[in-house]
Amino acid sequence: MSPVSNTIEAQLRTLLPSDQVLIGNDILSAYKSDFIGTDVGFAEAYFKVYNTEQVQKVVRFAYDHDLPITIRAAGTNLVGSTIPHGGIIIDMSAMNKILELDEENHTILVEPGVLLCDLQQYVEERGLFYPPDPAEKHATIGGNIATNAGGMRAVKYGVTRDFVLGLEVVSAEGKVIDLGSKCLKDATGLNVKQLFIGSEGTLGVITKCLLRLINKPEATAHALVGFSSLREAITAVNDLHAANLAPTAIEFVEKKVIAFGEAFLQQEFPLPQCAAYLVITFDGTTVEMPEKIARCQQVLSAKHQIEFLDLKDETVAQRVWTVRAALAKAVQASGIWEPVDTVVPLSDIATFVDYISELSEETGIRILAFGHAGDGNVHLCILKDALPAEQWPAKLDVVLTKLYRRVYQLHGKVAAEHGIGRHKRKYFMQEVGANELDLMRRIKYALDHKGLFNSHSGYTA
Amino acid sequence: MSPVSNTIEAQLRTLLPSDQVLIGNDILSAYKSDFIGTDVGFAEAYFKVYNTEQVQKVVRFAYDHDLPITIRAAGTNLVGSTIPHGGIIIDMSAMNKILELDEENHTILVEPGVLLCDLQQYVEERGLFYPPDPAEKHATIGGNIATNAGGMRAVKYGVTRDFVLGLEVVSAEGKVIDLGSKCLKDATGLNVKQLFIGSEGTLGVITKCLLRLINKPEATAHALVGFSSLREAITAVNDLHAANLAPTAIEFVEKKVIAFGEAFLQQEFPLPQCAAYLVITFDGTTVEMPEKIARCQQVLSAKHQIEFLDLKDETVAQRVWTVRAALAKAVQASGIWEPVDTVVPLSDIATFVDYISELSEETGIRILAFGHAGDGNVHLCILKDALPAEQWPAKLDVVLTKLYRRVYQLHGKVAAEHGIGRHKRKYFMQEVGANELDLMRRIKYALDHKGLFNSHSGYTA
Repeated sequence: MSPVSNTIEAQLRTLLPSDQVLIGNDILSAYKSDFIGTDVGFAEAYFKVYNTEQVQKVVRFAYDHDLPITIRAAGTNLVGSTIPHGGIIIDMSAMNKILELDEENHTILVEPGVLLCDLQQYVEERGLFYPPDPAEKHATIGGNIATNAGGMRAVKYGVTRDFVLGLEVVSAEGKVIDLGSKCLKDATGLNVKQLFIGSEGTLGVITKCLLRLINKPEATAHALVGFSSLREAITAVNDLHAANLAPTAIEFVEKKVIAFGEAFLQQEFPLPQCAAYLVITFDGTTVEMPEKIARCQQVLSAKHQIEFLDLKDETVAQRVWTVRAALAKAVQASGIWEPVDTVVPLSDIATFVDYISELSEETGIRILAFGHAGDGNVHLCILKDALPAEQWPAKLDVVLTKLYRRVYQLHGKVAAEHGIGRHKRKYFMQEVGANELDLMRRIKYALDHKGLFNSHSGYTA
Repeated sequence: MSPVSNTIEAQLRTLLPSDQVLIGNDILSAYKSDFIGTDVGFAEAYFKVYNTEQVQKVVRFAYDHDLPITIRAAGTNLVGSTIPHGGIIIDMSAMNKILELDEENHTILVEPGVLLCDLQQYVEERGLFYPPDPAEKHATIGGNIATNAGGMRAVKYGVTRDFVLGLEVVSAEGKVIDLGSKCLKDATGLNVKQLFIGSEGTLGVITKCLLRLINKPEATAHALVGFSSLREAITAVNDLHAANLAPTAIEFVEKKVIAFGEAFLQQEFPLPQCAAYLVITFDGTTVEMPEKIARCQQVLSAKHQIEFLDLKDETVAQRVWTVRAALAKAVQASGIWEPVDTVVPLSDIATFVDYISELSEETGIRILAFGHAGDGNVHLCILKDALPAEQWPAKLDVVLTKLYRRVYQLHGKVAAEHGIGRHKRKYFMQEVGANELDLMRRIKYALDHKGLFNSHSGYTA
């Protein structure tokens, strides 16, 4: 795309107060990329917006002049959705006010730039609880909604979608659209709100978010359970579900992945003799917790050879969380890597993770697998390590192509909670059916007929 | 609309085997109406379909000849969605097979004509549980999905939408569309599945439903709690939520409504001295139940003057359920009535129900209010009683107009779980914003550009 004319550039420059506008080369690279940062796009103008009216002003200008729009905020996107391909960047991060806490109705109205960690702290200080808990706490609520982010607590509580009661969005033509309400049930008309959730900024700009809260659980308890193999650990997940224990989260990790964190930290993880682990979390009333932990141990030992650690011992718990948290840092420190966010049916987690080991051996590329055993969401980190940079793109493509082929065979999906963006476009296009894609494109066209919103995201182009 | 030509009629007659086709006057009145039955539409042809291919055949013919399509099944619709306005009726009730129970993944694949009661029995016999529980157990799963039906257990488990993992639908052009999967998380593309849920047959025909199941709770417990006023009872709901007791259902009913059931049955309801009641349900493990009931009584008596009945006594429980169940029959027996299915924010239930009493006095029309206190869904039965038939439509319109005006003032919605259909079209159009309606219409046009599917439902016309 060619840069805009001088007339348009002059108009862009004065569209909002000058301290909210950057033009052309003045736009920082960080604003033209995602969290990975290796891929940098280009844009004619960047706007930091402070309210819905400013969003409308920018969107209307873009509409009138056929300028693409890329929406960003905290910059935690992992799939290239925030990499512009010409046109305008709208930065939502300054729209970060908490507008109304309604304790009686258990709702909170926030601007989309509020960080997840800030929202969680705000409501928990008041005895309330926002259950969705994606790992990246410095992502914004708007971003969480745009990707329908999930996280660990999805096993018990569901994903972001399940806690969005209402949205205010600015449409492609710059109109304000009010979707949803404080009502807990709603059967009035086509549910456009649901369509915006997970739409990755392809339909409009989210400017207000009405979220559902619950009461903060009185207590939380954790257990670390060691198994002789990953397959054994995964089988145990079904036994846990069958025992009606309603766990909040069930995370799995293999010893060989843990070793990666241990080496990075020079610190040992408990139960070193085991090949795979589940970290199981419960929440509820204080009295319930010891019962749940005891019942959990009983259920699992009845069917499996396990090592069981109740993590109420603070020092042991600390060792578990420290090594677990170090995994992400160890990955970052290893250099270039590619995040993968597949999901498969629960029954196929072990088969899939076994395949990842094979694939790693076959290709000589290190792949770390860990994730949400309770809901089938397997996160992979594919590491470049010492591979020469010029070989990396082709090699990564080989690994990803094989990997996603296996995912599709298992009736899995290319993205559980990160979205498709630019980076997964190619692999998503191999999966999605022609009829399904056709409907998505028709809807995109119906709501954004000029194709201006994040349209470099493949499936809507 | 004028009847179809002789040529078209001849083609319609042979489109499917003759025992699956009815033409013109041979179509039973029941197939041209809804559960209320007072309003009867007209149609050129009726098809009972047995599989997806037959649906495709009928839909393609309708598309090629611009014939409107009205979808029906068990005939329990309450808002006129199944009243045709010319064209073709597709009856889904014979597509009622359970296709696959996947115990490992806790999913079940069914045809849309499976009745809710049959599904519930099938899974519960196998130790599994389908949480959505709309009052009408003889409705079909397809109908439940088309209206996003809710029911009593929504307080703990959510509504139908929360348990639909996938759909197969036939599009307006007769193509088969596969939406969703057995994966519990999914962030791949625009969520067209969510759009079909609650779309009341305006976008296409649901031909397969993949539902999420949970394990059947070990035990269930109920309590009847009597209060001195409805306002007191409603206030208590918040205390229950605050106590983290996770009730499955919280139903409210006033003494004056109960009296209606008592008179019909000639049988007494317990705690006759109270003005309003909550029926509270818990489910979970067997050990939990007595604790939950005890804690519930303790929490409520700490703040309210209550009468408390643990319904583990079978004979007392029987009296409660018998009278409660008789309410619907008593309403039917009273003659002509109008079902209303409003929802308001939790904080406004008492205000709204107080207003209903005023409205009833002001207009001289009996209105029974009862419903789901746990989620703000207030069901009303407006009774014609002895009012002359010729005065009823105008009088009903006066009552409904005032009633919905109050609902909108309280930021409520015209429909919580029954949908809009034909009967609520007028009142929904008074509520919905122009910008929101515009987006719905664009989406409708994008997916059904000839406007053939249930297009007499107002918001898409």
